[in-house]
Order: sequence, then C-alpha cells, then structure tokens
Amino acid sequence: MSAQDASPPATTLSYEQAGVNYDLIDPLKISAQRAAAATGIHLAAHGFSEVPASRGESAYVVDVGPFYLASIVECLGSKALVADEMQKLTGRSYYDAIAQDTIAMAINDLITVGATPLVVQAYWAAGGSDWFGDAQRAQTLVAGWKRACDTCGVAWGGGETPALAGIVEGGRIDLAASCTGLIQPKERLSVGDRLGPGDAIVLLASSGIHANGLSLARKLVERLPQGYLTPLPDGTTYGQALLAPTVLYSPVTEALFKAGIVPHYCANVTGHGWRKLLRHPAKLTYRMQAIPKVPAVLRFIQEQARQDDREAYSTLNMGAGFALFVAEKDAQRTVDVAQACGVEALVAGRVEAGDKQLLIEPLGIRFGDDDLQLR
Amino acid sequence: MSAQDASPPATTLSYEQAGVNYDLIDPLKISAQRAAAATGIHLAAHGFSEVPASRGESAYVVDVGPFYLASIVECLGSKALVADEMQKLTGRSYYDAIAQDTIAMAINDLITVGATPLVVQAYWAAGGSDWFGDAQRAQTLVAGWKRACDTCGVAWGGGETPALAGIVEGGRIDLAASCTGLIQPKERLSVGDRLGPGDAIVLLASSGIHANGLSLARKLVERLPQGYLTPLPDGTTYGQALLAPTVLYSPVTEALFKAGIVPHYCANVTGHGWRKLLRHPAKLTYRMQAIPKVPAVLRFIQEQARQDDREAYSTLNMGAGFALFVAEKDAQRTVDVAQACGVEALVAGRVEAGDKQLLIEPLGIRFGDDDLQLR
Repeated sequence: MSAQDASPPATTLSYEQAGVNYDLIDPLKISAQRAAAATGIHLAAHGFSEVPASRGESAYVVDVGPFYLASIVECLGSKALVADEMQKLTGRSYYDAIAQDTIAMAINDLITVGATPLVVQAYWAAGGSDWFGDAQRAQTLVAGWKRACDTCGVAWGGGETPALAGIVEGGRIDLAASCTGLIQPKERLSVGDRLGPGDAIVLLASSGIHANGLSLARKLVERLPQGYLTPLPDGTTYGQALLAPTVLYSPVTEALFKAGIVPHYCANVTGHGWRKLLRHPAKLTYRMQAIPKVPAVLRFIQEQARQDDREAYSTLNMGAGFALFVAEKDAQRTVDVAQACGVEALVAGRVEAGDKQLLIEPLGIRFGDDDLQLR
Repeated sequence: MSAQDASPPATTLSYEQAGVNYDLIDPLKISAQRAAAATGIHLAAHGFSEVPASRGESAYVVDVGPFYLASIVECLGSKALVADEMQKLTGRSYYDAIAQDTIAMAINDLITVGATPLVVQAYWAAGGSDWFGDAQRAQTLVAGWKRACDTCGVAWGGGETPALAGIVEGGRIDLAASCTGLIQPKERLSVGDRLGPGDAIVLLASSGIHANGLSLARKLVERLPQGYLTPLPDGTTYGQALLAPTVLYSPVTEALFKAGIVPHYCANVTGHGWRKLLRHPAKLTYRMQAIPKVPAVLRFIQEQARQDDREAYSTLNMGAGFALFVAEKDAQRTVDVAQACGVEALVAGRVEAGDKQLLIEPLGIRFGDDDLQLR
C-alpha cells in the first residue's frame, strides 16, 4: 500500500489533541522565568554580568570579560518512543540517530546566540538498569553520540546514566544534553540587536520532522493500518523517515564566521514550526517569497492529519530547520557556505519595516503577533 | 511507636537488593567514557584543550586561556518519590527541598575541581502536563530552586520543562540540573595533582541522607509499620528526616578561596559513601582519626537495614557530606571558615604514604582499592 492509498481520516488532528497541554505548563514557566531573571544579579559578585537580551532567547549568555559564556540544557522529547517501536518491528536499534537528535536539540539552540559549542554533557535516565543491558542499543547510543560530537567539533565531557525505576517508565529512556560554549570574539554575539529591515532570511534545510511534532506523528500511527511500516512515496517507511536524525547546524555557523559572515539573528525552527521565525521581540515583517522543498514525511503527516498549510506550517518545520537573518549583501554567500557544509539552503525572504507578522507569500499564509507568545 | 520500638527485621538489606544493578550499567559507562575521551581533541581546533586529569573527576574542565571552564549535568535520582509519598501523607509539598537537592547534586560536584559555579540550568521532565497543574507543588519547586541559586550565588539561566508522557511515569517528575562555572584564577584548579602525604582531611557535615542511598531508604519503608511517618528519636518522622535538603557547599569553597586556602583535592561524598574518599587515583593512605556525628536518620537506616558499620559507611555519607584535603597548616582554619558559613566541620584525618586504603580508626574499618572501582 503506498502512502497515496492510505486515505486520510475524516478529522483533523491538532497538536493539542496529540496530548500536550500548554495551558497547564505555562503558568509554571512564567513563574520560573520570573524567579530565574531575579538571579542574574548574583553574577556581579564574581565580576561578571548577564546579557539581559539572552533571557528569552534559546541560550543564556554571561559576559565573563574576554568572551561570553553560553549554556543550555535541552531534552529530546518523545522521539525515543518511535525508536523503541521501530526496534520492535525491525530488530534494529535507531539510537544512533536518536543520539544525534538529542545533541542537535542543544547545539542548534546554543548556536543561535553566536556561540561556538565546546562541551556536551550526556543525560541518559533509564527506567531501570536493564535498559543498559541491551548491548546493541546501548552501543548505538554511544556511537551516535560520539559521531554527533565529532560532526560539531565538541568535546563530550561526561554525563549521567541513572537508572530511575519508578520515575522513568520501564524499558524507556529520558535523553537530554547540556551544552556549554563561548562567544569569541565578542562581536559574534547574536541576540537580535542587529536585526533590521533589509536583512535577508536564509533557511537551512531540515532532514524531516527533526525532534518536534513527534506527539502528533505518533498519534497519527493509530490511524494507519500499517502503522510505522506504512510506505512513503520515496520507498522508506513512515517510521524510518521519522527517525532521520536532526541536522546539526553548528558546522554551518562556524563556517559562516570563518567566511566573515556574522548573522544578525538566528532562529532554530523547533516547536511551533514557522511561527518560530517571529521569535524576535521587535515589530518587523518577515516576507517569505520562496519556500524550501517539503520532506516527504512532513507532507505525509500533513495529509494524514488533514492539516491545511496554515496549520502545518504553524506546527512542523516543513523543510526549514534553521533560519539565518543576514545582511542582504551576505545572503547568497550564506547559501554557498551552507551548501559547502552539505546543508541545503535558500534565500527565502526578507525583513521589512511594518507590523509584526510572517507572510508566506507562495502559500498565502499570514501569522501575526497574536498567533504565538513564544518568549 | 518510637524508633527504638521498631524492631529491626531479620535480614540485612544491601544496596543491590534495593534495585540498582551496576553490572548492567557499567559496560555502557565504560564504552561511553572511552568514546567521550576520544572527543577531547576537538577543542584544539578552537585553540583550547581539555584538562586530562578532569576525565574521571566529578566535573569536566577545559582550558580556555584566561581561565578554566567547568561543566556538569547531574540527576536528582529517586528522592522525588519520597517527596511524592510524603505529600500524599501530609498534604504539603516538599519540592522546595527537592529543588535544593537537585542543584546540590550539580554544584557540589562542580566545586570539587575548584570552580566557582556561575550558571545553573533546570531540567524538569514531567510525566504529563498535569504535573505542572498542581500549583502549590510547582510553586514550591520554583521557590526552592531560586533559593538554592541565591545561596550559591549562581544565575539561573533557564531550562526545560517537557511533558514526557510515555517516558516519565504519570504523576512523576525527573529532575536534573546542569551547571557551568569558571576556575579563576587558574591556580584554583583542583584535580588532585597537589594531594600528598601530610595533607589534612576536613569533613563537612551532611544534613542527613542527601540524595544518595534513597533506593535503600525507600525499600526500607516496606518494613516499617508506620512507613514514612515512623518517628525518629529526635521527634521528626522518617520521611521528613529523609527530605532534609542536601547541604550546598559552594559558599564554603568560595569563602575558603577568599581566605587564601586552596584545597589540594576535594571529594563530594555521594553514592558509595565514604569509599568516595578513595576517589583520587594515587596510591595513598587516608587515616581517619575522628568521625562526625551520625545524623539520626542515617543511624536509623543502618539499624533497620541491619548493616554493620562497614556496610553503612560504604553506602551512606554517615554525617560527612564533603571532604576537603588541605595543607596541614590550613586544617583548623578550614574548619573555622566552614563554620562561619554555617556548616559544621571537623579535622578528621590525614593523608599518608602507603597502600591505597581508607582507615576509619574509631570504627576499625579498612577499605582498600579493591573495594571500589570509582572512575
């Protein structure tokens, strides 16, 4: 049965229906952010200070004198559940891919502020000691983690491998990564103060769903008679395609710096899909005149979930994994540098004075400020 | 029923019986450590280098030129399960204490290498969005986290609050913290090269079980007719006593530096109890001639689990939460500085040339190198 034959179900499946209720999480987030903001003053006792604009950005930045220090902790999310199901169905472990996803969650956020990632720490919390007893799975996790560190040129410092029976479900693992980096020279700092009208928007290609939207993708499986083994038009299965590892973008940002290009702003396209392009707090219009190719797995999810383009682009990355906002004169060279790193890229739009909005002209979509409170 | 009346059960309860099987975890740990060690060379491309001696220490250290950068991620472990049970029994949330425990796990490890902790990131992975819907519990978590950051003078940079249904158990939360710090001036680096015969061993008091040994402590509850509400001799309940938050030791290490005292080595006494005093790779004898007061809750656990002193000191901290190895001339002043910070301390022993062993003379206990492979 090809994907085309799998007739889409009658009802639309939204992200909220897939099980994440932000209304319950957001009050805690807000009070935590407020409490966290009140602790920045402690740095003064050590002769340092925070970069206030980094509060609300993807990584926290401290001015330590000769350079800035950036740090972050990020969670993989529920993608490991797909790897677990696919291991049952195919007998092979996909934890090498899952490892890369986990590191990508941290690295791709850390680089948005202009940091060079230096050290990654692993957080692998299993539901019991027996998780680590599956040697094939454990070794693919280690191998994938190392390979991702090699790709990004970071040192794997160490980490934690607790067995948390009673907290993590039996047979499952909760994966996260912390990452520390430096912004050096300090001119590389990118927290949005240079963004302005006239800037070009370069989109870096994603490899598929990456590690956001998996709740929806997993929910959808219940509607597919062949489940994760449903073939996509390109011959891969739905499960395999979901498990394409997230692209690591730090080789691109490092190469850009070496080429003399300092982005004015960066946005990692994760949860909330293209609405992440509205992340910057300024009142600016982002006019997209071209869109990247949509990976087959995302088109399939859109069709199966009966989402219109507006809902799909507001939830999934739809082929754009990372956005670079650069000076217009640097736009084509940014694309060239990315492609030399093996990452497809596209000058997709420009920043204009105007209302805070994202216009995706080829699709006739507009997202306004009211479509999302991201920060 | 007082603690004395609770007659100890007939059989000894070891840590392995309490559910953690290191034989399954250790092969993964070793292959992960080997893979991680091979990534240190990446730092050279950025003009930096790792401090090789920090591999195997509690925090990973990178030489970034004007100072050293230290980073870590640490997990709370299963202590949150005690807080959950106690909330059911008493109606009050203990997550303020649990927050401090989580931060202490990261901070108390980070400071062993001589680092000043600067930034903490929160990792709070719940079993579902509804965890965050219990406003009292969520607010105590936020308040305790902030208070611990205030105590340590660190900035709370941000973090992750994922809802991980299907990975984290419903109603539970997996708590971890990452921490980044600087070693400045570089002379503060403490990775053991200065440790030697003649050094004094100063022990800083613990507040109770801290966050290690909880699997054993929880297992024991099944043997107690009154469970967590079993009264201890000092009038608190077993559950309350277990939930005394871990002491944060960074105010002491910061005050020591201001007093001109640079420890030759530090050991955070966590899992494996006093065997952690054997952490340093050198062939040295640690002769303890005094021991700190044992917190009531640890004495109670020892009695109820029918552990002899040797087993108790090899599992639990038994009143010593952190060990400072300092020049003999600095020993008493180290105690004075700690006490001025509100932390009880004791010159407990000295380092001698000889076999690698820990001698706890008041108890006639000897731990040799073969009693533990810690690194």
